[in-house]
Amino acid sequence: MIKVTVIGAGNVAYHISKTLNDADGVILNQIYSRNLLSYHFDDITSEKIQSLEDFKESDVYIISVSDNAVAEISSRLPLQNKLVVHTAGSVPLDATDAKNRRGVFYPLQTFSKDKLVDFSAIPICLEAEFQEDLEILLHLASILTKSVNIINSEQRKAIHLAACFANNFTNHLFYIAQAIAEEKNVPFELLQPLIRETVDKLNFLTPFEAQTGPAKRNDMNTLNNHMALLQKDVYKNLYKWLSQSIIETYEREKL
Amino acid sequence: MIKVTVIGAGNVAYHISKTLNDADGVILNQIYSRNLLSYHFDDITSEKIQSLEDFKESDVYIISVSDNAVAEISSRLPLQNKLVVHTAGSVPLDATDAKNRRGVFYPLQTFSKDKLVDFSAIPICLEAEFQEDLEILLHLASILTKSVNIINSEQRKAIHLAACFANNFTNHLFYIAQAIAEEKNVPFELLQPLIRETVDKLNFLTPFEAQTGPAKRNDMNTLNNHMALLQKDVYKNLYKWLSQSIIETYEREKL
Repeated sequence: MIKVTVIGAGNVAYHISKTLNDADGVILNQIYSRNLLSYHFDDITSEKIQSLEDFKESDVYIISVSDNAVAEISSRLPLQNKLVVHTAGSVPLDATDAKNRRGVFYPLQTFSKDKLVDFSAIPICLEAEFQEDLEILLHLASILTKSVNIINSEQRKAIHLAACFANNFTNHLFYIAQAIAEEKNVPFELLQPLIRETVDKLNFLTPFEAQTGPAKRNDMNTLNNHMALLQKDVYKNLYKWLSQSIIETYEREKL
Repeated sequence: MIKVTVIGAGNVAYHISKTLNDADGVILNQIYSRNLLSYHFDDITSEKIQSLEDFKESDVYIISVSDNAVAEISSRLPLQNKLVVHTAGSVPLDATDAKNRRGVFYPLQTFSKDKLVDFSAIPICLEAEFQEDLEILLHLASILTKSVNIINSEQRKAIHLAACFANNFTNHLFYIAQAIAEEKNVPFELLQPLIRETVDKLNFLTPFEAQTGPAKRNDMNTLNNHMALLQKDVYKNLYKWLSQSIIETYEREKL
């Protein structure tokens, strides 16, 4: 049995805690948070602590706090020479205080507390200072998911940036699409089959092959009509740069 | 039995022809194209013609050509007072030549010839000059799909623009994400669970609720690190404007 302590109270901390709590072969020893945990944590049976003095011995300590708080919380932990990992995609391994054995345990997924996820399909990206610790993390990760990946800090930075485009920015485009449709009393549901197909296509085609639309055809007439329809400057800029990027992508191809 | 002629050879023409050809209650009378049809059309048993002189009598003529060719082809058709519809999201009803009864039959989906689609889940947006023609289109559309929608030209313009954001631009963000990941030898597959979850979330949360990431948190440190990682100016501009748009969206909320 591998004993784990989770440090944090956010979306990632919640989903990791819930999954660890429910998994076989692992004990979620404690959850530490300075602040009160949200009601979502209520169905997690593990001990919840609010004081650093109440820390117990675990095999792995997972820091799952906002990126810019990792360094500070890691230095305040009452631990020495323990395996302490963080879950932040954009934070290097050595941001964690060197008084402990450092590692990274980065689940590549978007988490919201109100949306359950199937953790077994989530890629976990691992990094560790020491080979023995990497073995421990490989074991822990393999309990939680089928997709365990050893990824160095430079690769992880790239993944985190790519994930921004693939998830954060994509979701924001859905937000804009909804705003445009609903302004004309068109329900967002009408766009959902299109959105599902956009992703389903990736099972058969690369994004390069799957591209359609006026920018790909360099159809300036439609592009100008669309620009004229957009009211907000920031949406106009987005439309312009996204179209420009598509046009450049397929111009390169023609050369 | 409703008899239909399809005019065009592109992605939409192919998928509409294939679906009409396979459907009960409808006869795909002819497919007209000036140019030779691609091999994809080989499994469609309907008559294929290349000359306007070979046109036969149908109940509905569906023009499915590129947006800027709709007007011209509609004026060249050897037809008078027939029901002639086009499939273009961004083209108004009256772009079609007035010598025929005009309408729109716009399937709201992204089509690539090499990717089969389930037509029965695709919203079809209908518009017609005359009520009797609208009835014919409602009947025809209901043979093909469960989602039949009467949508005026102004709404359709908005839908087409929204679809650009929801599909064209989203797919391009996947392209960029893939490029960023593969540059560091990270396979695109690693991002696919994240992409699927991005869309799956929409079954439970609005895009506004589903948003996560550094821009939403206004985490300038991560935003600056990401900007520094991006090499191409067009990607930097995209990153900047997408982040800006997210920040503005959640700032408004705070006020």
